Amino acid sequence: MTDRDFLKRAIDLAHIHAAGENSGPFAAIVVKKNVIIAEAWNQVVANNDPTAHAEIIAIRKACQAQQSYNLEGCTLFSSCEPCPMCLSAIYWARMDGVIYAASKEDAAYGGFDDSLIYDEMEKEWSARKIKSQRMLAKAGRAVFETWRHNPRKIEY
Amino acid sequence: MTDRDFLKRAIDLAHIHAAGENSGPFAAIVVKKNVIIAEAWNQVVANNDPTAHAEIIAIRKACQAQQSYNLEGCTLFSSCEPCPMCLSAIYWARMDGVIYAASKEDAAYGGFDDSLIYDEMEKEWSARKIKSQRMLAKAGRAVFETWRHNPRKIEY
Repeated sequence: MTDRDFLKRAIDLAHIHAAGENSGPFAAIVVKKNVIIAEAWNQVVANNDPTAHAEIIAIRKACQAQQSYNLEGCTLFSSCEPCPMCLSAIYWARMDGVIYAASKEDAAYGGFDDSLIYDEMEKEWSARKIKSQRMLAKAGRAVFETWRHNPRKIEY
Repeated sequence: MTDRDFLKRAIDLAHIHAAGENSGPFAAIVVKKNVIIAEAWNQVVANNDPTAHAEIIAIRKACQAQQSYNLEGCTLFSSCEPCPMCLSAIYWARMDGVIYAASKEDAAYGGFDDSLIYDEMEKEWSARKIKSQRMLAKAGRAVFETWRHNPRKIEY
């Protein structure tokens, strides 16, 4: 199968769910060495889970299939450009790359606007829309001292 | 309980896991109307899941407890400043606010450096470190046409 075929598969899945109930118009596939190791679609409404974007679920499933939290050597095929949450997850999973079809402008046309979050990322806390506060800074930092001295820790 | 007490609880949990095995030095709590509705800690290594940050798990648990994908009226207490993935999830969950202790610089001191991801967010795809490609743009956009015409859709 070619990259085009894998992406077509993701789009087909997204299309099915775009027409469904309790669903959303997004799907994603993880491919390793030309084999699909995970397929997923948006389940925010179905699962009452705001983190259940197609890409997040696909990454989680691929990791279970590999029994690893590291997806080096894997590519994500997504029906739509990933939101900041999913893009970050792609980095944390150390994936090789991402191939997508619809743009975030297309997603906005469908009622899903990620641009607020992209904009908020670039700001300082004080300028963000969400209320925030920092306290107990010293106690917070002490946690990492404990971690640094943990002889059994697995660095990830 | 005060905000300080809730944050202290998150730090205590993070401390326990910072000293543990197959664990990570992060914990988070979701509070609604002065009641803890979810507690979580980092389980990336334990669960082979790169998305299993404390905040993500706490949000997912809180949503299950509320049977809703919307956490309006809830505040997240996190032992550490959220990474871009978790910050995005906080926005998607429509939480009221976030209170945290350690900074991302403290996290970097512990070996967890989110700054690459924050930097990557601001760039165009072509300038990002991860390989990317867009194809089948028209087919990708068509998914949102289907969605817009889906009479059973729940907008989320």
